[in-house]
Amino acid sequence: MILRGKLGLLCLFSFISIALQAQENYKDVNTKNEHTVESVYEVKNYDQAKLKFRKKPKNVILLIGDGMGVSHVFAGMTANKGALNIQNMKNIGFSKTQSGNNYITDSAAGGTALACGVKTYNNAIGMDINKQPVKSILHYAEDNKKATGLVSTSAITHATPASFIAHVEKRVMYEDIASDFLNTDINVFIGGGYKHFTERKDGRNLVDELKGKGYMVYTDLDASSSFKDGKLAVLTADEHNPKYDERGNMLELATKKSLEILSNAEEDGFFLMVEGSQIDWGSHQNDASYVVGEVLDFDQTVGAVLEFAVKDKSTLVIVTADHETSGMSLEKGNMKKGYIKAGFTTGSHTGVMVPVFAFGSGAEEFQGIYENTEIFNKIFKLMRFKKD
Amino acid sequence: MILRGKLGLLCLFSFISIALQAQENYKDVNTKNEHTVESVYEVKNYDQAKLKFRKKPKNVILLIGDGMGVSHVFAGMTANKGALNIQNMKNIGFSKTQSGNNYITDSAAGGTALACGVKTYNNAIGMDINKQPVKSILHYAEDNKKATGLVSTSAITHATPASFIAHVEKRVMYEDIASDFLNTDINVFIGGGYKHFTERKDGRNLVDELKGKGYMVYTDLDASSSFKDGKLAVLTADEHNPKYDERGNMLELATKKSLEILSNAEEDGFFLMVEGSQIDWGSHQNDASYVVGEVLDFDQTVGAVLEFAVKDKSTLVIVTADHETSGMSLEKGNMKKGYIKAGFTTGSHTGVMVPVFAFGSGAEEFQGIYENTEIFNKIFKLMRFKKD
Repeated sequence: MILRGKLGLLCLFSFISIALQAQENYKDVNTKNEHTVESVYEVKNYDQAKLKFRKKPKNVILLIGDGMGVSHVFAGMTANKGALNIQNMKNIGFSKTQSGNNYITDSAAGGTALACGVKTYNNAIGMDINKQPVKSILHYAEDNKKATGLVSTSAITHATPASFIAHVEKRVMYEDIASDFLNTDINVFIGGGYKHFTERKDGRNLVDELKGKGYMVYTDLDASSSFKDGKLAVLTADEHNPKYDERGNMLELATKKSLEILSNAEEDGFFLMVEGSQIDWGSHQNDASYVVGEVLDFDQTVGAVLEFAVKDKSTLVIVTADHETSGMSLEKGNMKKGYIKAGFTTGSHTGVMVPVFAFGSGAEEFQGIYENTEIFNKIFKLMRFKKD
Repeated sequence: MILRGKLGLLCLFSFISIALQAQENYKDVNTKNEHTVESVYEVKNYDQAKLKFRKKPKNVILLIGDGMGVSHVFAGMTANKGALNIQNMKNIGFSKTQSGNNYITDSAAGGTALACGVKTYNNAIGMDINKQPVKSILHYAEDNKKATGLVSTSAITHATPASFIAHVEKRVMYEDIASDFLNTDINVFIGGGYKHFTERKDGRNLVDELKGKGYMVYTDLDASSSFKDGKLAVLTADEHNPKYDERGNMLELATKKSLEILSNAEEDGFFLMVEGSQIDWGSHQNDASYVVGEVLDFDQTVGAVLEFAVKDKSTLVIVTADHETSGMSLEKGNMKKGYIKAGFTTGSHTGVMVPVFAFGSGAEEFQGIYENTEIFNKIFKLMRFKKD
C-alpha cells in the first residue's frame, strides 16, 4: 500500500512537472520560434548566362554562413517575402561537412576543411589530423601574389576566420591565432577580437606590431572610411561584435571596405573570406528571429559582393556553410507577410550536407555533391595554384 | 516549512520524472530514431560531361520522392556508406513547394504543381484554384504523340500519381481518380489501388473496361514479366503496397518494366513519372529506419533509370520531392558503419524548399531556385509542347 501511495504521488508529480515543462516550452515557442520581418530589402536580379564572365577567376570571394543549412536560407527567403540575393547564384552544389574524426563537425575542423582542404579533428585550426600545420588557400593566394582579406561578425580570431590564417592545436588559443596574423602579409582584416591583440599573457602588443609592419589599425569601422590604399586592420569589438539588431550593416560595410582595399592593392587579384558568424549562434539558441536577422544581414552582404562581381567580370563568388546548426525546419510561414515559425531538433550542430551557391568566373565547377575539402580544391585549381 | 518540504518533494519527483522521460526517449531513440544499414548496394558513377547527351530530350522520366528533403537524401547517403545513385545528377536546384493557399503544401497541391504547372489549393488533384481542370504534362505528352506511364509504391490513385492523370476536387475521390485512367490512353501504370477499379459505388468494373480498351491487366508484377509490347496495367495491391522491407524491389522492377513498355511503344518518345511514395509515410511516423529504407529503395530505382538514360542519350531524368516531411535532421551518424540518428521537429509536412537533381538531355535547365510549377514549365519547354 505504501508503495502504491508512493507510485501515485510519483505519477501526480510527474504529471505536474510535465505540465510545467509543456508550459515552459510553449512560452519559448512564442518568443523564440516565430519571426515576422519588419522591413523588406530589394534584391537585384542578375542573369549569369547573359553576363560575360571570364572563364578563370582572378578574384575569389568565399562567403561562409556559419551553421547555415537549407532551412536557414529558406527562412531568410520567406522573411524577405520571397527574394534573396543568393537566388542569383544558380550553380548549386552540396558540401558534405563530416570532419576527420566526427560525423558532426565543429567550426574549427569545418573551417579548416574549407580553408586548407584537409579533413581534421574537431578543434583543429589550420592543422591536419596529425597536428601538422597546413597551408590555407589564403596563404597560397599570398604566395601567388594575390592580395588577401578576412571579415567576420565574430572575433576575427574565432574558428572560421582563424582557419584561413592560423595554425593552432585548439580553437581557444586566441592569442596564438592573433599572433599568426603577424606571420602573413594579409592586406585587410575586419572583425572583433581587439583584446586578443592587446591584453596578452606574453606582453606583446600586436596592434603596435601591426602598425610597425605598416598597417593602419582602427577600432571603429566608420573611422576607416577615408582609408582606401594600403594595409588595414579594423578590430571592431573587444571580443565578438554584437548581434545583428545592434550591429547595423557592419558586415556589408566591412566587406565593401575590404573589396575597395583589395581592388586598390598592387597584387594581381585577391582572395577574400567573409563570415556571417552569428547565424550559428542564433541556431544554437534555437532563436528563429536571431537566425533570420543574421541570414538577411549575410544575404545583403552577398548582394554587395555580387554587385562587385558583375562589374568586375573576373570574380568567382561562393556562398556556403561549414555545417548545419540546430536541425532547423519551417513548420509554418507566410511569404506575403514575411512570417515563419521554425522548429529545431537540437541546440547543436547536425551532419546534413549544406548548400553551396556559386556565381561568376568558374561557378559551374561547384555543381554536384562533394566533400567540403573539394571547395578548397576547386578554388585552388581555378586559381591555378601549385602545391608546395 | 511544510511548503519547503513540498517544494523539495516536487523537485525530487520532477527530477525522477524527467529522468524517467529521458529513459523513455532513449528507448524511442533506439527503436525509431536510429538506423544502421544491413547491406550496402553498389553505385555506378557516370560523368555527364563526358556522355554526349542530345540537347533536347525525347524522353522525360520524373522521379518524385514524396516528402524527401535534403536530410532524407543525406540519411540515405550515410546509410549506404557515402554513395547514392542520385550523386551522379550534378545539375542541382531547389523547388519552392508553397501551394496556392498554404505555405505548407499537401501532396495533392504539390503533385498538381509538378504535374500541371499551377499553384492550387491543398486537396486539389489536377484542378486549379478555381476548381477548373488543368491539363497535366502527361496529357500534353499524349497529345504530342508520346507514350506515357505512371508508377508508385502507394495506390496508383493516391495524390501524387493521381495529379498526373485525374481532375477531382478532393484527393480522397479515389474512384473518380480511377475512372480518369480510362479517359486517357496511358501506356503503362503500375501501383496499388485495385479495389478503386473494382469495388465501386457506381458498379463499374474498370479492370474489365481496361481490358476492353486493349490493356493487359495483372495484379502480380512477376506475372507481367513476359509482357513487353502493348498497354499494361499492374495493380499490385488492393490499396497501398506494403513498406520497403516487405515489398522487395517492386519499385525498381515496375520502373524497368515501364521503361521496356514505353521504349517498345509506337509513339515518339515518352513521359514517365515514378513515385517513392512512402518516404513521406516513414517521415510522418518519425521513423528513421522506414525513411532510410524507402530512400534507398527509391535511389536504387534512380540507378536503374540513370542506366537507361546513359544508354539512350536523349532522356532527361529529374529527381525531386513534392515537399519536405517531418523537419528531419541528422544528429549523429557514421559513414563507415552506415549509421544515423535522426531528429524530427514535427509529424507533418514543412515549408522548406526541396532539392531538384537533373541528369541527361536538358538537365542544366534545372539549376537555381524556383517555384515547383517551374518543373512543369521547364519540361514543357524542353519537350517543345504548345499550350492549348
